[in-house]
Amino acid sequence: MPGNGALKARLRADYPYILEYRTRWSDNDMYDHMNNSIYNFLYDSVINTYLMEHCGLYPPTSPQYGMVVHSHNDYFSSISFPACAELGLRVNQIGKSSVTYEIALFEKGVEGVKSVGEFVQVFVDRKTARPNANGMATTLREGLERIQHKDYQSKI
Amino acid sequence: MPGNGALKARLRADYPYILEYRTRWSDNDMYDHMNNSIYNFLYDSVINTYLMEHCGLYPPTSPQYGMVVHSHNDYFSSISFPACAELGLRVNQIGKSSVTYEIALFEKGVEGVKSVGEFVQVFVDRKTARPNANGMATTLREGLERIQHKDYQSKI
Amino acid sequence: MPGNGALKARLRADYPYILEYRTRWSDNDMYDHMNNSIYNFLYDSVINTYLMEHCGLYPPTSPQYGMVVHSHNDYFSSISFPACAELGLRVNQIGKSSVTYEIALFEKGVEGVKSVGEFVQVFVDRKTARPNANGMATTLREGLERIQHKDYQSKI
Amino acid sequence: MPGNGALKARLRADYPYILEYRTRWSDNDMYDHMNNSIYNFLYDSVINTYLMEHCGLYPPTSPQYGMVVHSHNDYFSSISFPACAELGLRVNQIGKSSVTYEIALFEKGVEGVKSVGEFVQVFVDRKTARPNANGMATTLREGLERIQHKDYQSKI
Repeated sequence: MPGNGALKARLRADYPYILEYRTRWSDNDMYDHMNNSIYNFLYDSVINTYLMEHCGLYPPTSPQYGMVVHSHNDYFSSISFPACAELGLRVNQIGKSSVTYEIALFEKGVEGVKSVGEFVQVFVDRKTARPNANGMATTLREGLERIQHKDYQSKI
Repeated sequence: MPGNGALKARLRADYPYILEYRTRWSDNDMYDHMNNSIYNFLYDSVINTYLMEHCGLYPPTSPQYGMVVHSHNDYFSSISFPACAELGLRVNQIGKSSVTYEIALFEKGVEGVKSVGEFVQVFVDRKTARPNANGMATTLREGLERIQHKDYQSKI
Repeated sequence: MPGNGALKARLRADYPYILEYRTRWSDNDMYDHMNNSIYNFLYDSVINTYLMEHCGLYPPTSPQYGMVVHSHNDYFSSISFPACAELGLRVNQIGKSSVTYEIALFEKGVEGVKSVGEFVQVFVDRKTARPNANGMATTLREGLERIQHKDYQSKI
Repeated sequence: MPGNGALKARLRADYPYILEYRTRWSDNDMYDHMNNSIYNFLYDSVINTYLMEHCGLYPPTSPQYGMVVHSHNDYFSSISFPACAELGLRVNQIGKSSVTYEIALFEKGVEGVKSVGEFVQVFVDRKTARPNANGMATTLREGLERIQHKDYQSKI
């Protein structure tokens, strides 16, 4: 993965898919900041919305679903309720059954990025909870490729 | 409080303050519905956003803050991630130190109301955690009156 | 339902099923209290643990599951992270397809009750999301009857 | 940081501080697993409980508090409601103002580790939200040293 400097310079333009999430009262911790764990909730939400709306995923019945096997996150600056967050999503790498997402959190109306992280998901068959011998389904792969950042080398 | 029939007929027009909240992946339970406890998270969020933006509340330092002493909620229909929720807020009653909010949850693009509930807050002094002898601060009262439903008799 | 006075006098002995839940950092709001919405999370948790361990419920596949149609809660005193909470559960009423639970929250090592609430669930068939013509399954009913408070008249 | 193989072999004995957390109904996602974001909630909880009970931290007023600047996690196996989780904590590194925690999640009654992660916190002065020129307070440092793993070289 790139150094903190590169990540800290991320712009909204680096992300082809962006959704707005209003923060909730319970997101703040006692220091008047959104709790660090909430970032992961929002990362997960933008990923799964993309999978459902653009990759054919329907969680209750889809033959394959994604299991998160690794996550990491760098926090550069805080955000507080009741601000609105903007979550940017792109795909850094696609393997046979796995995908590495990069997600960034911005605050609506504020320029600099607040945090950048990666999630690695492995798509598994619902029946076996194991990757399929043929890898992820074609609809998943095609949807993920549409937001893939072509020149990126993730080093996780 | 009115019967279920009256509540089930609530419209967006019954609420002077409405905010949109995108649902999160973690909101859904195993039955592919937003978990009933999440409704309260969203009710709390629209209430506190109103208090901060229109009633002068600043949680880290305000001399008075609201403690929830009662809540109830009726659930009429479900909503699922990744839908957007619209939260409507009005004030049903104002006492010396207490306020009764009515909150309703709608789904963006869907007509009927999903749930209606009430929260009762008592404003207490930060130093004592007790109501002030003079009741709630004037800025709070004036802000709450602006969204009060005048003809309503809460029967909690 | 009984008046606040009766509820405020509830003891651990009023509940045949009690589980201990350690509070989490994110449970606290900015006022150093467990957020009111978290009470519902814990109520839901003790109910569903009882259903799974004593009433044969297995959420991913059970032919019937419970939908919450009403909830209410009275908050008497606060609890803060990192305290341990004790959740007491009993059944106040059983109908053909519905059940009214009473749940109370205590703090480990502290005598008085912190909050008391009721949840009303309707058991529905997974296939139709509607109550079954024959009501709830026998295993559910028998499990619920084991923690029913016989002399209680809920007035919801 | 060590490779996945080493982490996957972690035992309860590798952690000097262990707390038990009962899972909650809302922790599960639609695939009947505890949601990956919940791991971070629990990591945060065991860290902050240790800070409050053994390092003199009192979140509402302490002159210094910890801000998470980095987190990462590897997920090896899943856990589901209503299981009890056991959270193990140790300190991998202590700098002038920063600390690297290692946290592991086990399931009560099950041998293998479910996940291992690290959190990096920087202690900042409440007034400035910046690290103090003299680094973290002595009570914090002494408390953290008591659970430090001496031979460990974190490579974050």
